[in-house]
Amino acid sequence: MGLIVQKFGGTSVADADRIRNVARIITETYRRGHQVVAVLSAQGKTTDELITQAAQINPKASKREMDALLATGEQVSCALCAMAIEALGCPVVSLTGWQAGVQTDAQNGNARIRKVDTERIQKELDKKSIVIVTGFQGVNKFGDITTLGRGGSDTSAVALAAALHADLCQIYTDVDGVFTADPRTVSGAKLLEEITYDEMLELATLGAQVLHNRSVELAKHYNVNLEVLSSFTGDPGTQVKEVVRRMESSHVSGIAVDKDSSRIALVGLKDEPGIAFKIFSMLAKRGINVDIILQSIGRDDTKDISFTVEKGDLDAVKSVLEENRDSFHFDHMDINDNVAKVSIVGAGMINNPGVAAKMFEALYNANINIHMISTSEIKVSVLVDLQEADRAVQSIHDMFFSREEDD
Amino acid sequence: MGLIVQKFGGTSVADADRIRNVARIITETYRRGHQVVAVLSAQGKTTDELITQAAQINPKASKREMDALLATGEQVSCALCAMAIEALGCPVVSLTGWQAGVQTDAQNGNARIRKVDTERIQKELDKKSIVIVTGFQGVNKFGDITTLGRGGSDTSAVALAAALHADLCQIYTDVDGVFTADPRTVSGAKLLEEITYDEMLELATLGAQVLHNRSVELAKHYNVNLEVLSSFTGDPGTQVKEVVRRMESSHVSGIAVDKDSSRIALVGLKDEPGIAFKIFSMLAKRGINVDIILQSIGRDDTKDISFTVEKGDLDAVKSVLEENRDSFHFDHMDINDNVAKVSIVGAGMINNPGVAAKMFEALYNANINIHMISTSEIKVSVLVDLQEADRAVQSIHDMFFSREEDD
Repeated sequence: MGLIVQKFGGTSVADADRIRNVARIITETYRRGHQVVAVLSAQGKTTDELITQAAQINPKASKREMDALLATGEQVSCALCAMAIEALGCPVVSLTGWQAGVQTDAQNGNARIRKVDTERIQKELDKKSIVIVTGFQGVNKFGDITTLGRGGSDTSAVALAAALHADLCQIYTDVDGVFTADPRTVSGAKLLEEITYDEMLELATLGAQVLHNRSVELAKHYNVNLEVLSSFTGDPGTQVKEVVRRMESSHVSGIAVDKDSSRIALVGLKDEPGIAFKIFSMLAKRGINVDIILQSIGRDDTKDISFTVEKGDLDAVKSVLEENRDSFHFDHMDINDNVAKVSIVGAGMINNPGVAAKMFEALYNANINIHMISTSEIKVSVLVDLQEADRAVQSIHDMFFSREEDD
Repeated sequence: MGLIVQKFGGTSVADADRIRNVARIITETYRRGHQVVAVLSAQGKTTDELITQAAQINPKASKREMDALLATGEQVSCALCAMAIEALGCPVVSLTGWQAGVQTDAQNGNARIRKVDTERIQKELDKKSIVIVTGFQGVNKFGDITTLGRGGSDTSAVALAAALHADLCQIYTDVDGVFTADPRTVSGAKLLEEITYDEMLELATLGAQVLHNRSVELAKHYNVNLEVLSSFTGDPGTQVKEVVRRMESSHVSGIAVDKDSSRIALVGLKDEPGIAFKIFSMLAKRGINVDIILQSIGRDDTKDISFTVEKGDLDAVKSVLEENRDSFHFDHMDINDNVAKVSIVGAGMINNPGVAAKMFEALYNANINIHMISTSEIKVSVLVDLQEADRAVQSIHDMFFSREEDD
């Protein structure tokens, strides 16, 4: 018996039947003697439909009004879910972000939660009510509605779990949990029972798309026990926690692929101090996120710098570089948006130098060329041709998971 | 230059084009130098669609959750309208009921406005912003969202106009204003330039369906100058105020028809004191609204009592009367739900006894039988057969409006 926060995404509440299913999961948890706070996203495509409506009226609408508009999506799904729970005979109350005390900064469209004032939720829990809270939204100090941006509902759930000192935060989704690789494309992908926050963070950042990294960071910071599981099967999913028990031999917990990368190479840069600083501070000022960076010696007192950015940022990068060409003196720019980043992640990697070599071996065996390499304490990423990406993941996965590990 | 509250109904904001039209009306008013607070209903059929969704999930959903659900409709239309105004280059902010300080009692689904805390609206007006406020909703003292029931957005607009001491409250709708009769069914119906609150109240109650009577009562109480006008034509509509200037000869301002009446006659009631009290207090306890009451002497120490109720209440009335038949001792009950109530309304009527006679003359000329008659200081109502109703209205209208008045 304890306090459990349960989060349900848009697919889990897409229609009346699925809302009834979510209501069943919540009431079963409640009837086992737990206090339950459920955080819901908007139904299925609601948010996209609202964005389309807004675009018809004003493609450059202010973020404040976009937030006021979009926040209705979760209010609808939460009220409907509360009604479904009423029909199952349990006491319940739905609360919007402002009612639930979710206070954010004033950055409309991508607000950060500053504080959760749990008074109202606690009062409802004390009255033995199930509490349904709108995900993805809060209220700023001016009393305006804000939304949290991508992955916002996961973040709402973890923030509420932290503020309420919940025993567990369950993230219900449309997959069974966190896998060693994407089970839709990699044969033999295995469900992980446990994973550390840090590994999950690398996987979230690397495009595993199970949990948004903001929510994992928050869970790590407040030591919130997370579980990722399916709202359709009811089976146990993956626990995300600080330290996990794991067999000594298994150094890699997952393999992720990110097909949204492009590589830019600046060839023949004049070799003078501060050149890298100039380039990357200029890109940072424009809000462009640079991922892998690689610098190599060129010929005749020049050097080359290569880096990757999201495909969506490519045009902005090109224009920033062209505009400032005079201050850089590079020879030419080489752009390749036909690449993908494949990464292995594992907390045990740091003490096992053989892991990276094994990854390269798998790619060599599959005859896949590596364009760039980047490593951190718990991951190794390589850039390969986009059309080789799936085969790369499969061959690496086969190497680490489908046969006995023997290093 | 002054403060104007403008209210737009669901038809006026039904789609993107109409929202743009509403935004144009608002910004034109603003650019003429006025402060503008606009109150909007939900778009077209939104509320009905949300009710349908709720019914699929729980036909007996609590009113609290219904209100949380329905309140999203106005939040959407207001955010979209604010975006349309942004596109026209004016400063604007949309506010929900709770943000706008609309405080109500706790009666979900049919809440009454207790107070409007205008601080936030005033702050936005001081910043030269146009303010868009969700109609139909408020917040109770527990911080829960409430809705105001039928005609709620009119009431919101008038309450805001009263609290802000607005110079004018314009109710934009899909008709040109208040007519001498329903222009869709009565030929020669004329637009009224002015009408008194009391006349408007009688017309609203009598089924003219232009303004909800709660909003007119509120306007009368706080002496809010109302104007009813079309959001499509931009032409001047009808002013609703305390005293109107009117030609001495025109005693009747409008004719209304209510096809939702049924007549019940209790024949052969024992003629003893308190019998009417017993019957009507019993009906009042069940929340049944009785309209016209008529008592006449019967035969042999008995009397007859006839009265009208809304058709929807007929079954409840029958069962109340049958259950209590022992305490009344009536002979038999006669029910006629094939009737309509036709009324003439006019503040000048009280000093002109000839007005009622002229109405009866019109009906006599048209060979229409009168079942019941009821009069007040500013109206005369008659009950006629349902199938004669439209002809009755037309003949009365011809008598008072389409030819020279000569009494």
